[in-house]
Amino acid sequence: MREVDKRPVIVIVGAGFGGLNAAKTLRHAPVDVILVDRNNYHLFQPLLYQVATAGLSPSDIAYPVRAIFRRQANFDFRLAEVQSIDLAGRCLNTSTGPITYDYLVLAFGGETNYFGLESVAKNGFSLKDLRDADAIRNHILKMLELSTQVKDKNQRRALRTFVIVGGGPTGVESAGALSELLRLALSKDFQRMKLSDVRVLILEASERLLPGFPEDLEKSALETLRKKHVEVRFGAAVIDYDRAQVALRDGDTIQACTLVWAAGVKAVSLTEDMGVPLGKQSRIRVDATLQLADHPEAYVIGDAAYLEEAGHPLPMMAPVAIQQAKVVAINTIHSLERLPPIGFEYKDPGSLATIGRNAAVARVGRFKFHGLLAWLVWLAVHLVWLIGFRNRLLVLINWAWDYFLFERAVRLILPSSENHK
Amino acid sequence: MREVDKRPVIVIVGAGFGGLNAAKTLRHAPVDVILVDRNNYHLFQPLLYQVATAGLSPSDIAYPVRAIFRRQANFDFRLAEVQSIDLAGRCLNTSTGPITYDYLVLAFGGETNYFGLESVAKNGFSLKDLRDADAIRNHILKMLELSTQVKDKNQRRALRTFVIVGGGPTGVESAGALSELLRLALSKDFQRMKLSDVRVLILEASERLLPGFPEDLEKSALETLRKKHVEVRFGAAVIDYDRAQVALRDGDTIQACTLVWAAGVKAVSLTEDMGVPLGKQSRIRVDATLQLADHPEAYVIGDAAYLEEAGHPLPMMAPVAIQQAKVVAINTIHSLERLPPIGFEYKDPGSLATIGRNAAVARVGRFKFHGLLAWLVWLAVHLVWLIGFRNRLLVLINWAWDYFLFERAVRLILPSSENHK
Repeated sequence: MREVDKRPVIVIVGAGFGGLNAAKTLRHAPVDVILVDRNNYHLFQPLLYQVATAGLSPSDIAYPVRAIFRRQANFDFRLAEVQSIDLAGRCLNTSTGPITYDYLVLAFGGETNYFGLESVAKNGFSLKDLRDADAIRNHILKMLELSTQVKDKNQRRALRTFVIVGGGPTGVESAGALSELLRLALSKDFQRMKLSDVRVLILEASERLLPGFPEDLEKSALETLRKKHVEVRFGAAVIDYDRAQVALRDGDTIQACTLVWAAGVKAVSLTEDMGVPLGKQSRIRVDATLQLADHPEAYVIGDAAYLEEAGHPLPMMAPVAIQQAKVVAINTIHSLERLPPIGFEYKDPGSLATIGRNAAVARVGRFKFHGLLAWLVWLAVHLVWLIGFRNRLLVLINWAWDYFLFERAVRLILPSSENHK
Repeated sequence: MREVDKRPVIVIVGAGFGGLNAAKTLRHAPVDVILVDRNNYHLFQPLLYQVATAGLSPSDIAYPVRAIFRRQANFDFRLAEVQSIDLAGRCLNTSTGPITYDYLVLAFGGETNYFGLESVAKNGFSLKDLRDADAIRNHILKMLELSTQVKDKNQRRALRTFVIVGGGPTGVESAGALSELLRLALSKDFQRMKLSDVRVLILEASERLLPGFPEDLEKSALETLRKKHVEVRFGAAVIDYDRAQVALRDGDTIQACTLVWAAGVKAVSLTEDMGVPLGKQSRIRVDATLQLADHPEAYVIGDAAYLEEAGHPLPMMAPVAIQQAKVVAINTIHSLERLPPIGFEYKDPGSLATIGRNAAVARVGRFKFHGLLAWLVWLAVHLVWLIGFRNRLLVLINWAWDYFLFERAVRLILPSSENHK
């Protein structure tokens, strides 16, 4: 097929926010777009913690890639895992064979960074994909079930103690949702469970929550978390975990059968084998045009790209990836038309984090707000960004259920890859 | 706790239709009810094939057991797998320790019966629980993805050939739903896929479909299946399968990368280790009072119980289990009150099977009907029987999506136990 077809082939790796938007932006370009991903769906990662805390089903936040691009004639999808990248030969080696390209857009995102803490990587949960979210939900429910069958008081308390490491948006949102799941929904299922036995902790190594948010919003988030019975500990650096006990650097220990690691991300490890210059967190250094210095036909966007702005690396967040996707699409077309590439400039749309019912913090441009208004903004933004009208409707129904009836719909220990890694 | 509590303990094994209804019927009885299941949910098995064919999410047809019994004061739940049963010692050995009982209700249901065909058990799919349904959905979607990457015409055709073994209700319903999934929904995602390459077959060893249905309804079902491009072969007994080729007893072979075995059920294999008299399909022989002859404090109901009516074993279907659950609850109370037990008599409510859009066959009492009316009855009956208003609403939305937009919502290869067993 390739021989007959004379149009340049743009291969995009990753169906996250970056890859998806790059492919969409190229819909009228005189090119063939091939999107490669190991999953057949786009995952709406901002709501992943709600799958982990039994509020949503995996299918509510995943959307088939082929369905998104049904009407795009220059698009093709390849379900495959990229194993290595031959930049010199312009070829990807994948689990289902090689794919050659004229232009390459690497949008393969990030993975959990345990900073070398092997025991935590082995015994804790990460929260990066649906497999993780399924495993966390199953594990939480299983620990509560087990706790009803255990006679030893300390063991029971450990089964009902949930540690979240990291006070960034993922940690804060997960802790708020988990505390509400336990205190508002599951307490009705486990009526003999004493709420004083149930603990949700955020362990944050630094002295502050929600980096990137203004200080008064951070204070407001902290206050809301405490109202929701989430214990927040600052200066608490985890150094070891064995599924029963968390050890901190200062010598303190916490008995807990659940640890979720939300304290670090880095680019996917594939970047380390490419022989290209890397920045912090294994991210690939790119020019302002998002090109690799030695391979101008190869672009990197999103979490996997390292680019600084005003001396700071760009955050690993969806808005960066989405904005870079547009630039990368323009630059490939410019290259075809022999025009110079344009440079990327990040327009910060603000930050949003919810802590639970009626509670969120928001920074939009120069405006800062918290509480109910921020929460409504959070709801609206997430519903609008979610792909697919059915998914929006189902998410809205699940949220309404939770909000009005204090119910979490998916309190199910469902078959998943493993119940504990 | 047991020592303080003087009330007799009734342990019910299995949270299917039988176990659930037995526990519910005992809600005002002066007993402690303990329901044991290895899953924390009740599964609405009649819609399982819709999870396997990407129409519904697992969470739409599963409901947490604890939530069902929230208001029942004499109820407790144990998440555990029963490993063996000591009838003489009145004790269950489970994965989380022993459970002693005064009365025992075994409602642990059935499992797939491969009739000793090891290669089929190893390489084919069964359709008994959510794990199976998830695995089938993932596999179907993966085979289609693979088929777009394969150059060999025969291999491509094998990837697009789906064999369902067994022409009972499960086989017929699965085949109809699968054919519609492929031809109406997925054909839009895989626009270069030729529909002439896509095959769905029902292989039935006997000479008829839908045993238990009147002959004219069987004819109508067969006609509908053929209109939906399902090939039905009678007298086709499968003897071997290796994930690529199905071998039939008459020497014929079919190239197919997917085989779903819906040709047999039997009681769970635990029945074989109990040292009690068994009937056909490893079902436990019980008296008309549903008691074990040598252990009147032990009852068996549903798929696991063997009881004949007019010389035929009762069918392994939900209505039998539900009706027996009521009798078993009455008989335990009678036993406490030193009254004689009552005998079970099956009132056949009829049979229903759907073949897809606007098509079903129904026998209700003396009435037989098919087509749109039967389909509407099927819809109504299944919605009413489904537990939980939210589940009903979500199932209805998913059905409406499918019906009006020809979309199957859950076309996702999601993390599951294994993608192929």
